[in-house]
Amino acid sequence: MSWPDAPFIPGGTTFELQVEPRLCGGIEERSLFGGWTLAAFADAAQAASGRHLRSLSAAFIERIPDGALLTVSTTAQRTGGQMSLLRVEATTGDTLVATGQAWVGPRAGTAQATSAAPVVPPPDECEPRSYAGVLTRGLTALMDVRVAGVERGSADEPRTQLWARLTSGLSFECAVAMVSDHVPYLAMRVMPHVRTTPTLDASVRIVGEAAADWLLLDVRLDADDGGYAVGRVSIWDADGRPVAEAQQTMRLVLRA
Amino acid sequence: MSWPDAPFIPGGTTFELQVEPRLCGGIEERSLFGGWTLAAFADAAQAASGRHLRSLSAAFIERIPDGALLTVSTTAQRTGGQMSLLRVEATTGDTLVATGQAWVGPRAGTAQATSAAPVVPPPDECEPRSYAGVLTRGLTALMDVRVAGVERGSADEPRTQLWARLTSGLSFECAVAMVSDHVPYLAMRVMPHVRTTPTLDASVRIVGEAAADWLLLDVRLDADDGGYAVGRVSIWDADGRPVAEAQQTMRLVLRA
Repeated sequence: MSWPDAPFIPGGTTFELQVEPRLCGGIEERSLFGGWTLAAFADAAQAASGRHLRSLSAAFIERIPDGALLTVSTTAQRTGGQMSLLRVEATTGDTLVATGQAWVGPRAGTAQATSAAPVVPPPDECEPRSYAGVLTRGLTALMDVRVAGVERGSADEPRTQLWARLTSGLSFECAVAMVSDHVPYLAMRVMPHVRTTPTLDASVRIVGEAAADWLLLDVRLDADDGGYAVGRVSIWDADGRPVAEAQQTMRLVLRA
Repeated sequence: MSWPDAPFIPGGTTFELQVEPRLCGGIEERSLFGGWTLAAFADAAQAASGRHLRSLSAAFIERIPDGALLTVSTTAQRTGGQMSLLRVEATTGDTLVATGQAWVGPRAGTAQATSAAPVVPPPDECEPRSYAGVLTRGLTALMDVRVAGVERGSADEPRTQLWARLTSGLSFECAVAMVSDHVPYLAMRVMPHVRTTPTLDASVRIVGEAAADWLLLDVRLDADDGGYAVGRVSIWDADGRPVAEAQQTMRLVLRA
C-alpha cells in the first residue's frame, strides 16, 4: 500500500510519497494539495520521533506536480524528555519544495476551550462541499467534506463551517493537519476577483484529542491588503471540544 | 550603538546580539524575552534580503540567559521576484537555541479587516501594565505597554487589550513581531495554578501597515489540555486598521 493508505514506517528519518491524482487539487494544473503536504510533514515527524504532533509550521515554496516523487526528510533539532523539535524538508529531485518545523510530544489530552463551538447540523444532514475545478475532484477519494453552516458573527463576516474527515489510515494528528488547509476554500468563495490563493505558509497547533473522526472546521478570513491575506481555522470535534487552531498566509493572484 | 538601538546592518547573513537586562524578562532567572527573539529574527531576515517581513514562525528551544552573545544566521531557501523565504537560526556558542522561517516581500499596504477593532481608550488614558517579577522590569526601557481594556465576547472569556510600542530604532515589522509575544501575559493572569508558560513556538503574519507606532493588541487564550495551551493576538493600529495576526503554543508549568 502507498502513503497515505499506509503511514510512514516508524524509526526512519527520510520518507517517500508518490504524488497521485487522489492527493491533488488544482484549477489549471494538478498539484499536491497543501493539506497533504502538512499531513506528510506531521506523519514524518511522528514516525521519526515516535511522539505525537503538537505544533507544525510549514512554508510552501514550489508547486508539487502530480506524478512527482516527494522525499520528506527530518532532522532532530532538539530531543528532550517530553518534547522534540524536528526540522522537515520536502524535495522533488534536487528542488526544495516545502520546509517546516514540528514540535512533537505527549498525545493531546481532553481540552477545554474559552469559547463555544459553532452550533451546526450533524454531518449526515449536510451536503458535500463543491469543488471549483474538475482537477480537484480526486480529493474526494480520501477526504469527505460537508458544508455544515454559516454561523457568523456579523452579516458580512467571511466565515463558514465545514465537517471534514479522512478515509485514509493516517493518525488523528495527520488528519487534523490535513483538514486544517481550508482557508483557501473560503477565500476563493468570498473574493470573486481572485483567481487563485497559493498558500505561503500554514501553522497548526493541536490542543486536544477528538472523540471521533469527524472534525468541525470553523473557517474565517481575518484581513487582506489586496496582495496577501491571512485566515484561520478553529477545529472542533463532534462533541464540541477544541482540537486545534490553524492559521495561513495566502498570496492573492487576481483575475486578468 | 548596540542592537536594537541600531538595527542589523543590511547585506549580511549573520548578525550578533548582546543579551542585556533591558531585553530580558524572567521570574526566577533573567532571560531574553521571546518577543525580542522574534524581533531579531525579523530584523535578520529583512537585513539579509532587503525585503519586508510578511510572515514569521519561530520555535524556542533553549532559554537564552542574560549576558549571552546571540548569533542569528540566515539562509535563503528561495529567492523569487517578489517573495523570499529565509531560514533563521539562533545560537549561543555551539548551542542551537531558536529556529525559524520567514517570508519577506513587498511592504504591507493598507489592509482591511473582516471584523472591527476593539473599542478602547487611547494610550495616554491607560495605565502601564504590571510585571509579575522584578527581573522583568528592564523590559520597560524599550517597550511601553498600557492596559487598554477588557472588551470580552463573554464574561468568562480570557481576553484583554493592551497598547504597546517600542522605543528602539527598529522597523515597523520588527516592532510588530516583538509586541506580538503577549499571550503569556494573559495566560499568567488567568491561570493562577500555572508557575510559568514557556513558549514552544510563535507565528506572526503581517497584513497591513500601521498609521503610527502605537499598536493595539487584542489577546485571547483559545484552549488548553492542562499541559499545553494555545492563544493568539490580533494586532491593530491606532486608527482601527488590521496590522497582524499572531499565534503561540505554550507549555504550562504548574506550581508545586
